[in-house]
Amino acid sequence: MKILIINCGSSSIKFKVFEMPEEKLLMEGSVEKIGEETSFFKRSVAGLETRHQEKISNHTDGLEMIARALVEPGKGIVSDVNEIKGVGHRVVHGGEGFDKSVILDGDIIRRIEEYIQLAPLHNPHNLAGIKAAMKFFPASRQVASFDTAFHTTLPEKAFLYPIPYELYEKHHIRRYGFHGTSHRYVAGRTADLMGIDREKANIITCHLGNGCSITAVRNGRSIDTSMGLTPLEGLMMGTRSGDIDPGIIFYLMENMGMGVREVNSLLNKKSGLLGLSGVSNDFRNLLENIDKKRVAIAIDIYCYRVRKYIGSYMAVLGRTDAVVFTAGAGEHRPLVREKSLEGLEEMGIILDREKNSSTTDSEGEISSRESKIKVFVIPTNEELGIALDTYIHSS
Amino acid sequence: MKILIINCGSSSIKFKVFEMPEEKLLMEGSVEKIGEETSFFKRSVAGLETRHQEKISNHTDGLEMIARALVEPGKGIVSDVNEIKGVGHRVVHGGEGFDKSVILDGDIIRRIEEYIQLAPLHNPHNLAGIKAAMKFFPASRQVASFDTAFHTTLPEKAFLYPIPYELYEKHHIRRYGFHGTSHRYVAGRTADLMGIDREKANIITCHLGNGCSITAVRNGRSIDTSMGLTPLEGLMMGTRSGDIDPGIIFYLMENMGMGVREVNSLLNKKSGLLGLSGVSNDFRNLLENIDKKRVAIAIDIYCYRVRKYIGSYMAVLGRTDAVVFTAGAGEHRPLVREKSLEGLEEMGIILDREKNSSTTDSEGEISSRESKIKVFVIPTNEELGIALDTYIHSS
Repeated sequence: MKILIINCGSSSIKFKVFEMPEEKLLMEGSVEKIGEETSFFKRSVAGLETRHQEKISNHTDGLEMIARALVEPGKGIVSDVNEIKGVGHRVVHGGEGFDKSVILDGDIIRRIEEYIQLAPLHNPHNLAGIKAAMKFFPASRQVASFDTAFHTTLPEKAFLYPIPYELYEKHHIRRYGFHGTSHRYVAGRTADLMGIDREKANIITCHLGNGCSITAVRNGRSIDTSMGLTPLEGLMMGTRSGDIDPGIIFYLMENMGMGVREVNSLLNKKSGLLGLSGVSNDFRNLLENIDKKRVAIAIDIYCYRVRKYIGSYMAVLGRTDAVVFTAGAGEHRPLVREKSLEGLEEMGIILDREKNSSTTDSEGEISSRESKIKVFVIPTNEELGIALDTYIHSS
Repeated sequence: MKILIINCGSSSIKFKVFEMPEEKLLMEGSVEKIGEETSFFKRSVAGLETRHQEKISNHTDGLEMIARALVEPGKGIVSDVNEIKGVGHRVVHGGEGFDKSVILDGDIIRRIEEYIQLAPLHNPHNLAGIKAAMKFFPASRQVASFDTAFHTTLPEKAFLYPIPYELYEKHHIRRYGFHGTSHRYVAGRTADLMGIDREKANIITCHLGNGCSITAVRNGRSIDTSMGLTPLEGLMMGTRSGDIDPGIIFYLMENMGMGVREVNSLLNKKSGLLGLSGVSNDFRNLLENIDKKRVAIAIDIYCYRVRKYIGSYMAVLGRTDAVVFTAGAGEHRPLVREKSLEGLEEMGIILDREKNSSTTDSEGEISSRESKIKVFVIPTNEELGIALDTYIHSS
């Protein structure tokens, strides 16, 4: 059965097509820079990438282009779009309502629309993709998989903020957490590799992509996570600050005369690695400039904050079986992993430096034999996670 | 030598007089509710407390009352104010400029005035007390002891926020930390009790008063602390939220139409234990109402957040010798200590429940014999810390 996975961002659509249940990737690609003059489409089949530039105005046009590519004679993978039995959509915010993926219908779409206020940068694009997919894949089962779903198991003490309780009761202000599909996938995979029952594994999952978050998984369930009401909280990220003194916002507004939008944009788009380094939010560029003082300190702080969260979540878990790194820097930057685990030997984490260095794009254990707590690198595969859910709903 | 210690809050002045270097407390007291109709003065000498109500308009009048009380025939402790050789002042914010206490002069006062912007709720009152003390104790040496001084040893990776570097360089936005006199005092005292060199002790100090903060002390120096640019960051407190998703502030302003002052006041005065419980910011009241669901969850969250910081600072320290609790709930609430250390056995912290229960107003070890990391309760004594500094400067 062929399953298409759609991940709509503000100006991009990423997609993958799997043959399920074999988990075989048939095609992948993306539509990028939607709305800009330089927008383009690329796809890759059996390792062969083709790419062409064309003005793509919106998500609907982008989805149409993907639908056409799938059936393109000679280059496509199906002869009719109806052969795509299921379309799985990544939806960022599912609020408290969705603890697992669901088959999309008018009612579900209305509920996702209600969460736009909680994720104004994400849910509208996810919804645009859903509506376009319903148009171009009318016979396919449409499934929504929520970034927040894995974290609906958080206990009250982890999801409530120390603010007036009414703000939760009446306005739903609480920790939701994101990257759930990724955390769930790598936690499960780690348990499998360790040969322990997923339902009994205590794992700290570090998703270090452009957005970064870390989750404490006890007995296979998320019990705490660093992103909160919004994806701004927690670890330092590419351009996002993560945790800061809330008093800084008041200082910027009351003493420096900045407006709320300006501060919002400052913390979301001009902070993190980019803001501290003054160079880039990309580790490739940063590592090329690591002799610059501000670049070195930016990387230092990034890793220091990962380390503090690991310690914090060890205290939450009580017993920790493994720490796992995934996504961008988590998969590809041994230096980040090494610095994040620096000095944790007394707490039972001992890295094997050689294994760490040689694991840059693959799955593997990178802790030493004596390490009480194991350390893994697991390339994340959110699309496969969504494909598995979509397959179940489409069978 | 007699040393007077002054601690000016927004509507109160607390004072203590010590005979130094004997560290003998001769008199203590406070002026409370300054500016209100119900303001009063109380003092205690040799365990005997006297108190009288009188309208006290401002800090100057309050200081004059203290000066008069010291020389009052029969009830006072000196025959002339000139016998007070040194007056030590608690000053909340010393910025990056003061890494230890200093003798006050016009230049120092101007520098403290510069930090008003960083601590608008504290420094003005501290300065009012300093100016009044200079008037009523003209022959005494005046010494300022800064809450931030102990934390000037923080490394860059702990004091820089992941925001544009220019905000630090040009606007001094960084982590300063507070309660330094308390953290320094209890860390030193813990090392003494353990019979280890203060300069070699790695200690996590939990100051759980009305304001709460926690510090990682390595080799006797503060290397990380939970309060930041302002005393709003970090642990959940009586009425302050501590750490929250910065995105919540934008949500309250952009989606709920709140103003910046309103949100500032919400997070500083209506959050924390008070906001979650809906009952009180005082543990005495809370524990009387612990059968109420919201009260129980407020206490749960308070302790959960202490626990997460302890784990985090264990990761910062690498090797931790001891955890110490001090101030209000830290000294008097065994339940808070027990819940804060819950589940940390695997990490080397094992509480002796009996010792914990029986230590409610005294100094003592409360960990079990098998506990790798020791746990102590040390009543804080910020005034004595300031008195020691003032004595050195006045000798």
